[in-house]
Amino acid sequence: MEISRVAILGPGLLGGSLALELAAAGWCDLRLWGRRREALDLADEMGVSGLLTTDMDAACAGADLVVMATPVGAMPALAKALAGLATPPQCVTDMGSVKGVLLATTRPVFHAAGIPFVGSHPMCGSEQQGMTAARLGFFQGAACIVTPEPDDPPAMVRMVEAFWQVLGCRVVRMGAAAHDAAVARVSHLPHVVAAALAAAAVADDPGVLELAAGGFRDTTRVAGGSPGLWCEILMENRAAVLAALAGFEAAAAGFRAALAAGDAAALTTMLEAGRVARAHLPPA
Amino acid sequence: MEISRVAILGPGLLGGSLALELAAAGWCDLRLWGRRREALDLADEMGVSGLLTTDMDAACAGADLVVMATPVGAMPALAKALAGLATPPQCVTDMGSVKGVLLATTRPVFHAAGIPFVGSHPMCGSEQQGMTAARLGFFQGAACIVTPEPDDPPAMVRMVEAFWQVLGCRVVRMGAAAHDAAVARVSHLPHVVAAALAAAAVADDPGVLELAAGGFRDTTRVAGGSPGLWCEILMENRAAVLAALAGFEAAAAGFRAALAAGDAAALTTMLEAGRVARAHLPPA
Repeated sequence: MEISRVAILGPGLLGGSLALELAAAGWCDLRLWGRRREALDLADEMGVSGLLTTDMDAACAGADLVVMATPVGAMPALAKALAGLATPPQCVTDMGSVKGVLLATTRPVFHAAGIPFVGSHPMCGSEQQGMTAARLGFFQGAACIVTPEPDDPPAMVRMVEAFWQVLGCRVVRMGAAAHDAAVARVSHLPHVVAAALAAAAVADDPGVLELAAGGFRDTTRVAGGSPGLWCEILMENRAAVLAALAGFEAAAAGFRAALAAGDAAALTTMLEAGRVARAHLPPA
Repeated sequence: MEISRVAILGPGLLGGSLALELAAAGWCDLRLWGRRREALDLADEMGVSGLLTTDMDAACAGADLVVMATPVGAMPALAKALAGLATPPQCVTDMGSVKGVLLATTRPVFHAAGIPFVGSHPMCGSEQQGMTAARLGFFQGAACIVTPEPDDPPAMVRMVEAFWQVLGCRVVRMGAAAHDAAVARVSHLPHVVAAALAAAAVADDPGVLELAAGGFRDTTRVAGGSPGLWCEILMENRAAVLAALAGFEAAAAGFRAALAAGDAAALTTMLEAGRVARAHLPPA
């Protein structure tokens, strides 16, 4: 199936970056929907050409693909709105960080309306947010996890995967539960750790950060993200984040025990494990 | 006191970067000492002009300031060598990450020889190491902690502070114990946390890192550092690192409790504390 018309719902960091990318590439008829006119006007100023509208019907009418680019918590309501349109879209995907909860809250709405819904999660982000932070090249080289369910139409899954590939993503297919466990470890856990580290380092003496160098800045960078947004993500993926956090706390306790015992060999082994683990990162 | 001749002991990342900087600036007679000829030859190729030698006497004779740029563990032996020179230097400083241990192991050697020793710690680094990673601009804008003891000659303390200021550092003066506690929090703890996070995220499935984005890469970057070097640093600053780690573990446990209880308000408060803490970072 060809993709001729794409509608993006939500002109935030991800939706806005996607809109910039599609506008620049120019291979599809682009529609960008937002609840507030301000972000759409900003998108227009930033070079997003196409229909920028607060009218969901106008945005989604005849769309081959609708991309939900809002926080996960807003998706059930979006699904209901899409299901009620006079001309529903051919297929819907999303860019949400948690997939299990979407299976429970959002997929049934699409299912009942006969609209194929194939989950996606491009693994890129920033501690910044909103259309102001959107930029070209945001998706280039990122992994994009696509989470089809067994009864998703294969043609729709292929279309969604092709969409992300055209945007420069490496597509990785996995189930919703595997997705949630994996992103708990590589994205949600690092966020918790960075926030705990920043808070603990400062403790009762903010002046100590005058001494911090690039290491501290990088290690805690993601802690600069929106507390409200991240609270939602962590709550939506609670079980998997708790499991990942337990593994991390065990590793930290191992460091504490080795240090307390003055066991240099054990300490070196654990430091080496950390270094080796990073060797599995894809090239920057 | 004017600084005319500077000797750097150890052509690694810090010593090499300092040598590049002084060679480029050209305001002093520069000597670089190393145990092995290879690193000195590399320094020569990279543009370090001056006397590059394996002969410590030749390097340090008549030096106004000697900068020890080796790991802290090698400094007591360097101090003995410097104390035994026919023409001892006017003043010695260092670039070590831990100061309490130097008071115990190294300062007494200089004291006995009548050589003023004023501790320094420029807060810059990298997960890379060695002369190959040395570069110009390494010290620019970094905090440099200078840790004078009450009986250090004020003129020598001023000279050492002026030296770092000329190199572009923000000089911060504090005692050795305060230094060790502060760097435990902003440098040594982040290293432990990054290593534990990288190892825990991978656990038994290295493939998960194929999904990692910039957040994971940055949060764990320092874990790419040398395990041997970092084991030494953590062991040398054990007590302060253990105290910092205890504070961090309490913060992580707070996140776990809030998540387990589904307490979104507590979670948001802790995320906000992490974000606010980073606001105390100096401008990048």
